[in-house]
Amino acid sequence: MAYPRYAGAVIKGAIEFRALVRQLGIADEQTSLAQNPLLNPTVQGVAAISQAKPGTVSYIESAALAHTLATTQASVVILPQQPTVLNETATQLGLAWVVAAQPRLLFAQILGLFYQPWQPEAVIHPTAVIHPTVTLGTGVAVGAHTVIEAGCTIADHVCIHPNVVIYPDATIGDRTVLHANCVIHERSVVGQDCVIHSGAVIGAEGFGFVPTAAAWFKMQQSGSVVLEDGVEVGCNSAVDRPAVGETRIGKGTKIDNLVQVAHGCQIGQHCVLVGQVGLAGAVQLGDRVVIAGQSGVIEKVKVGARAIVTAKTLVCQDIAEAQTVSGIPAMPNKLWLRTTVLIRRLPELFRKPS
Amino acid sequence: MAYPRYAGAVIKGAIEFRALVRQLGIADEQTSLAQNPLLNPTVQGVAAISQAKPGTVSYIESAALAHTLATTQASVVILPQQPTVLNETATQLGLAWVVAAQPRLLFAQILGLFYQPWQPEAVIHPTAVIHPTVTLGTGVAVGAHTVIEAGCTIADHVCIHPNVVIYPDATIGDRTVLHANCVIHERSVVGQDCVIHSGAVIGAEGFGFVPTAAAWFKMQQSGSVVLEDGVEVGCNSAVDRPAVGETRIGKGTKIDNLVQVAHGCQIGQHCVLVGQVGLAGAVQLGDRVVIAGQSGVIEKVKVGARAIVTAKTLVCQDIAEAQTVSGIPAMPNKLWLRTTVLIRRLPELFRKPS
Amino acid sequence: MAYPRYAGAVIKGAIEFRALVRQLGIADEQTSLAQNPLLNPTVQGVAAISQAKPGTVSYIESAALAHTLATTQASVVILPQQPTVLNETATQLGLAWVVAAQPRLLFAQILGLFYQPWQPEAVIHPTAVIHPTVTLGTGVAVGAHTVIEAGCTIADHVCIHPNVVIYPDATIGDRTVLHANCVIHERSVVGQDCVIHSGAVIGAEGFGFVPTAAAWFKMQQSGSVVLEDGVEVGCNSAVDRPAVGETRIGKGTKIDNLVQVAHGCQIGQHCVLVGQVGLAGAVQLGDRVVIAGQSGVIEKVKVGARAIVTAKTLVCQDIAEAQTVSGIPAMPNKLWLRTTVLIRRLPELFRKPS
Repeated sequence: MAYPRYAGAVIKGAIEFRALVRQLGIADEQTSLAQNPLLNPTVQGVAAISQAKPGTVSYIESAALAHTLATTQASVVILPQQPTVLNETATQLGLAWVVAAQPRLLFAQILGLFYQPWQPEAVIHPTAVIHPTVTLGTGVAVGAHTVIEAGCTIADHVCIHPNVVIYPDATIGDRTVLHANCVIHERSVVGQDCVIHSGAVIGAEGFGFVPTAAAWFKMQQSGSVVLEDGVEVGCNSAVDRPAVGETRIGKGTKIDNLVQVAHGCQIGQHCVLVGQVGLAGAVQLGDRVVIAGQSGVIEKVKVGARAIVTAKTLVCQDIAEAQTVSGIPAMPNKLWLRTTVLIRRLPELFRKPS
Repeated sequence: MAYPRYAGAVIKGAIEFRALVRQLGIADEQTSLAQNPLLNPTVQGVAAISQAKPGTVSYIESAALAHTLATTQASVVILPQQPTVLNETATQLGLAWVVAAQPRLLFAQILGLFYQPWQPEAVIHPTAVIHPTVTLGTGVAVGAHTVIEAGCTIADHVCIHPNVVIYPDATIGDRTVLHANCVIHERSVVGQDCVIHSGAVIGAEGFGFVPTAAAWFKMQQSGSVVLEDGVEVGCNSAVDRPAVGETRIGKGTKIDNLVQVAHGCQIGQHCVLVGQVGLAGAVQLGDRVVIAGQSGVIEKVKVGARAIVTAKTLVCQDIAEAQTVSGIPAMPNKLWLRTTVLIRRLPELFRKPS
Repeated sequence: MAYPRYAGAVIKGAIEFRALVRQLGIADEQTSLAQNPLLNPTVQGVAAISQAKPGTVSYIESAALAHTLATTQASVVILPQQPTVLNETATQLGLAWVVAAQPRLLFAQILGLFYQPWQPEAVIHPTAVIHPTVTLGTGVAVGAHTVIEAGCTIADHVCIHPNVVIYPDATIGDRTVLHANCVIHERSVVGQDCVIHSGAVIGAEGFGFVPTAAAWFKMQQSGSVVLEDGVEVGCNSAVDRPAVGETRIGKGTKIDNLVQVAHGCQIGQHCVLVGQVGLAGAVQLGDRVVIAGQSGVIEKVKVGARAIVTAKTLVCQDIAEAQTVSGIPAMPNKLWLRTTVLIRRLPELFRKPS
């Protein structure tokens, strides 16, 4: 049984260009059909422009890649709205085309029509170990050898892959997917339409130890983790729970692989944390913050909404809204770029060091 | 059945301030009881000062946070010993208080009275696969679908969560907790009172390859990993075994999430490795070394006892005892701080570059 | 039943020096036997030179460690070919010896004669859940609680440890080892003689999201991951599949723990990615590239064959063949070394800042 959200959405096989355009709700005027209604290739998938084969849809994002049109074997290309000369070029090359404000977005939408990830059937595998106090919604899939401890609530159409472990009293929202071998710890709340990827760990104990003369005294971690709706957490990432209160990941935030979110962080909505980012305890991110790969944020630092932290940066102080920062420690990106040029030139600038 | 170490320690419900103080062995003179014995609120948990509700215990660590006393809803506050004016302030605000040399430590102790992490009952789940040659102590919990291979020794009151895999001939000490989906490899020795968090991998093959003209020749890893008593290893961290000899983590050392400890490292006692730290092969750390997040240490480097490596540092040379180092490559922290100021000023300092 | 590739290779117990030399195919002239045929100790293992006990084989790689010969308790030492005075020293110390062009390589070869990692018997554990459409070769081991979904092909003598999950339509080549709790995602192709270490995740969804006004739109990841023959992937590392096309890891490439290889990367043959390295999307590495620990490569960057990226580097631009680069952002290693010296000297060079 297919899952409702995918029902009917995936094109099994091929579709004519005209039918595809109609399905997407795009006016003919935005396509080659307005110029050449007879150019109506059958397509059956998508591909990168340089690897495309006949029968696929591909895209370019700017005129800088116009030269790829001459050699691509794609049957349909998605073009940016400007310059319109690209339309003429494509037409002359015999390519069907459609223009889009965001060609990559339309490409992603078409890709989603042809492909959806595999999901198991909505059945409870007989080897799953589910505590009798667990509340299970309708249409839930529970994979082989998955373990769900006491008091958990699993909402409708949740898909739990094999070998997942859910500690007591966790809540998993509608349609959320838990991939193989991930672990959801006690009291965690995972919203609707979330995806927890393989090996990720949600809600484990924060790293809280107090120094004493004898040893590190363990601060128990009585708090919990809340992932709001639409959050994704990548493979082998960890989101820890705090000693008291919550660690919260805002709605729609996407977290890549091998990311560390420490105890008590408050992450806004629609943020992006790229691979191997690390947030120390009690970091606060506003909405739509983007933190690029391998960057870190020191404990209790606040990063304003829409700020961008470039790769391998260390944020040690609060960052204002909409700032782009770089460097160790972080500074405005433009300043950092100038310092990197000068650092390379230091041997020349100090050729005769005093 | 509760585990012995927690037996009776957790307050199930509420306790009066006076009784709490007595249970902690604190003299009345260190509390508001000496001034106002009638102020005896009932408390039932702990909270951060800004999030506290009536009936909770909170703390501040210094006079810099004195202003939070006026607005907190906590019923009891833990105060630093100095300045004593804080006691008067709290009394005037109607807050019960207790002073402590380390307020955060006392807070952790009180937190531990109210909360202990969930542990499963000390039973062997019928789906666990335990080789007949395994030695199991008393009071052991083995979760569903856990696999324990031949020749392992599991001591008393060990708690193994579901989906753990223990390779042959490993030893797990008394009261150690192995969280879900962690893996303990062959011949590993895990001491008493250790915690291995979800997804961590102990004792896998070190990354040993010898270059040849044809390919990388694999150096087999015949050594083993030893975790001494009281070690914690965070989620999805990895401690590798060496080709020959041991990788050893000293007593009481705490390792955060996503940390890499390569083959043959010798880590002292009571060290702290914060999230995403990486130690290359054969690194040696003295006792009580602290390495902050995302830092790395190059192979075979020795870091002296009580040294501190700040975040995102790369240690390329031996570090003396009690040094604080920063930077890529590492230098004394004070020097690094001065260089970071000057690097930001480089565009100004070289306004008219030659 | 032992696995074919190990059959007969491992010395169970002890062997005389002369017999060991013959088994390795080394001429007597390259050993102490040419000088002293009566020096024929029995050996039963290998050890590091400083930890060696009688009856072990050890090695030194250069004359700089000649002093260790005087104190080692090893019975046999592997020596470099130059200087030959080392042979005399060893003979005078009563040590049997053998010279080698690469002493560490010969040491690894001898280690492999005495030790091979534990492998389970080639049986299918009754708790494994294997879809009836799976094709299983001969001599396959499938550990307890492992799950293999529909359409997978598992070739001959594959060894799958417990709690592994293989999503549909994956292919695992001959003699490959999948360690405990790793996950192989749909359509992944894992070659022959690969090793996937515990907790690694192969072929999960790449991190592809397209910004829109409302939220991040998920780009489905319809591609797949291909690991060619002889690839190793370390503990808790992740190799993601792309939206379209392949992520490919070339033959013989070795990946350490906690490494991130993002969607669409093309990694050459015999590369090495050390612990906590991160490659962003669509990175291309030529053959025999070495990337040291905690380094990162920005998306779509190409690194030429035999290039070396030192630890904690951020590669932001294409790197030519055989270059060694360092720094954030990366620059030629020699230049970087000079800049690091000057950065340390900045406070002195700007003692009287303008």
